[in-house]
Amino acid sequence: MDVPDDLARRAADLDVEHADAYRRELFSLPADLVYLDGNSLGALPRAVPAALADVAERQWGDRLIRSWNESDWWGAPERVGDRIGRLVGAAPGQVVVTDSTSVNLFKVFVAAARMRPQRRVVLTDPDSFPTDLYVLDGAARLAGLTVERVPPAEVATRLGQLGPDVALVSYSSVDYRTGELWDLPELTRIAHELGALACWDLCHSAGVVDVRLDDHGADLAVGCGYKYLNGGPGAPAFVYVRSEHQATFDSPITGWHGHVRPFAMEGAFDPAGGITRARVGTGPMLSILALEAALSAYDGLSVPAVRARSLSLTRFFVECLDALGHGDSVATPRDDGRRGSQVAVRHPEAYAVVQALMARGVIGDFREPDLVRLGFAPLYVSHHDAARAAVAVAEVVDGQEYEREEFRARATVT
Amino acid sequence: MDVPDDLARRAADLDVEHADAYRRELFSLPADLVYLDGNSLGALPRAVPAALADVAERQWGDRLIRSWNESDWWGAPERVGDRIGRLVGAAPGQVVVTDSTSVNLFKVFVAAARMRPQRRVVLTDPDSFPTDLYVLDGAARLAGLTVERVPPAEVATRLGQLGPDVALVSYSSVDYRTGELWDLPELTRIAHELGALACWDLCHSAGVVDVRLDDHGADLAVGCGYKYLNGGPGAPAFVYVRSEHQATFDSPITGWHGHVRPFAMEGAFDPAGGITRARVGTGPMLSILALEAALSAYDGLSVPAVRARSLSLTRFFVECLDALGHGDSVATPRDDGRRGSQVAVRHPEAYAVVQALMARGVIGDFREPDLVRLGFAPLYVSHHDAARAAVAVAEVVDGQEYEREEFRARATVT
Repeated sequence: MDVPDDLARRAADLDVEHADAYRRELFSLPADLVYLDGNSLGALPRAVPAALADVAERQWGDRLIRSWNESDWWGAPERVGDRIGRLVGAAPGQVVVTDSTSVNLFKVFVAAARMRPQRRVVLTDPDSFPTDLYVLDGAARLAGLTVERVPPAEVATRLGQLGPDVALVSYSSVDYRTGELWDLPELTRIAHELGALACWDLCHSAGVVDVRLDDHGADLAVGCGYKYLNGGPGAPAFVYVRSEHQATFDSPITGWHGHVRPFAMEGAFDPAGGITRARVGTGPMLSILALEAALSAYDGLSVPAVRARSLSLTRFFVECLDALGHGDSVATPRDDGRRGSQVAVRHPEAYAVVQALMARGVIGDFREPDLVRLGFAPLYVSHHDAARAAVAVAEVVDGQEYEREEFRARATVT
Repeated sequence: MDVPDDLARRAADLDVEHADAYRRELFSLPADLVYLDGNSLGALPRAVPAALADVAERQWGDRLIRSWNESDWWGAPERVGDRIGRLVGAAPGQVVVTDSTSVNLFKVFVAAARMRPQRRVVLTDPDSFPTDLYVLDGAARLAGLTVERVPPAEVATRLGQLGPDVALVSYSSVDYRTGELWDLPELTRIAHELGALACWDLCHSAGVVDVRLDDHGADLAVGCGYKYLNGGPGAPAFVYVRSEHQATFDSPITGWHGHVRPFAMEGAFDPAGGITRARVGTGPMLSILALEAALSAYDGLSVPAVRARSLSLTRFFVECLDALGHGDSVATPRDDGRRGSQVAVRHPEAYAVVQALMARGVIGDFREPDLVRLGFAPLYVSHHDAARAAVAVAEVVDGQEYEREEFRARATVT
């Protein structure tokens, strides 16, 4: 089935209306593929292969060790960090690209505990992405913290009960399963009211949600480079430490890149000023510089324009599902203010539905136990893609394609 | 001055004798450059740019998220780890590529403390590479350890005094400044005699020294991918956990890649079996796969042959310095059994000497306060290169070229 005429016309109108944040020509995507998995691995920006070739062949191959100075490899973590900073509303000098999200969470959790030594409780979401929970449990064990798992809606009440025992409130900006957007400004505000710090995981919002960390007073944040930032598989992560906390940010992993004089080769750790103290070891430069090239796709774009296009895409996708009789399966809030940049569709055979969609050229992913996740990366997904995806969902479900054996066999990694 | 005839003839003979481990044709190095900084950043293997282009354009760009299965990105950390394992004498399943050396040191230090809960002292070298000292101090603070800085030569005595208080003996295989090779078998043996664990930093030995971790009973080890392994700037690091310790390896940074069922998205950390539990977050795949391609330069080479060529190069370089009247400046042991793969030359104006050498096309590096470090990567450095470097050192020093203003101005990163 093709996209019905009325939805196709509406898609065309919306694509015109939100054309300012559409940059498909900057991405290398197979023709005809509807790629709705940019919330897991962003598409390849065309600038990346040439940048990688230059880094490998000229900077590394020809200039060798000299590139640490000549190409300022040394400054790349902060330089690329500032580019991400613009997208998450952080003034320069507060974001650095380093390590993985998990390692950054560990640093931030222990450092937060040290900023609030009289407080021993951390509140976090029981439905956080697992690594957030695992790392927090591991950090709590070392730092003497108690972790309480409290859904976002109950944080205010629980904070009121615990009061000055709470050191940190650590939540994701967007729920990785349902795509629900939590209220970062309000949760940050109530944490501060009781003297707690607020840490945000921006993995599913950096590059698509106008999180405005500085404006809302967020204390700490982390995020990855490989989703909407399009930095490539496993791209290095970032960490944000608000300026006013940097002097007291006491990282548990004290590597030489965080030292104030790394090449003095001193015997004791003396942390660098600013965000640099959140660095640890030598970062994977090929991956960091690929991320830098990838971020050029955002050059000149305003975050509110990107956010408007993202909301339009997800809103229109839900509208299409409604029109096709599948609105009830939507697990994501319909309220714009409560939605990130993905729509999750609930189905008991979600795994097989994802495989059947893939066979039709619509790529999303599966999350236990029953969710089809469809991420709408505003820079390269069109409203027409959204309509095609909705039609594909309707056909796979209505035609019970998910019953086919070929779609039910589980692969190793999903 | 050219290389004197007698040294040139001897270089030619040695190049023939050790031709089996010479693979210059597999590396992309500027003609006429004598590159003796492979102990800081290895040269570019020719296999890397094509591999990077394939990973970026086909695996990422065309196949997108599907490459996690199709190209087994998920298994890359263990797959590449096993390739490094062969070079350091570790049977498969004991090495994984993950994080940076500093982060791996942190994991290993805390895990070692947990394996020896009744023991609270760690011995380490006061002259370790700084990040080893910094990270150990940071881990000790969290894990309740006491760090004693004891030179390698005094470990046996100090161990005898402290006895069952020592949890861990943590040393570098090769001193990063002088290039001295420490006695890994003997230090490991005496640590075990008193019930302590032995951890080795292999940054300056992986790929050039036959460290034979399994044979010598090493418990834990870490190392980087960007020196003699030629993985590129900031290439991901590796960690070795001896098979018998894996079941009790209790990492402080419990990320989802170390979980036994990462995609079950469970609420509590349950470590994977084997070396996989040392993984943390999603690794930088471009950098990991560049390292994998780089390691192909070692395919079919025996580690003893590589080590024999490395020793011949450094021995001959010292012989050349002797012949040119500069043997007294050598800070590295002349005994083959006590030398890694670099020769350090002492000079009060070492920084300017390094710059002057660079202007002559001989690249080494400087380490505070007075060392010129010259690393001999056996796969792409020839004995003729060694002779040219010795002549350049003699000329720079004899001609006092280091006095020139242009060579004395300090750059940001050295």
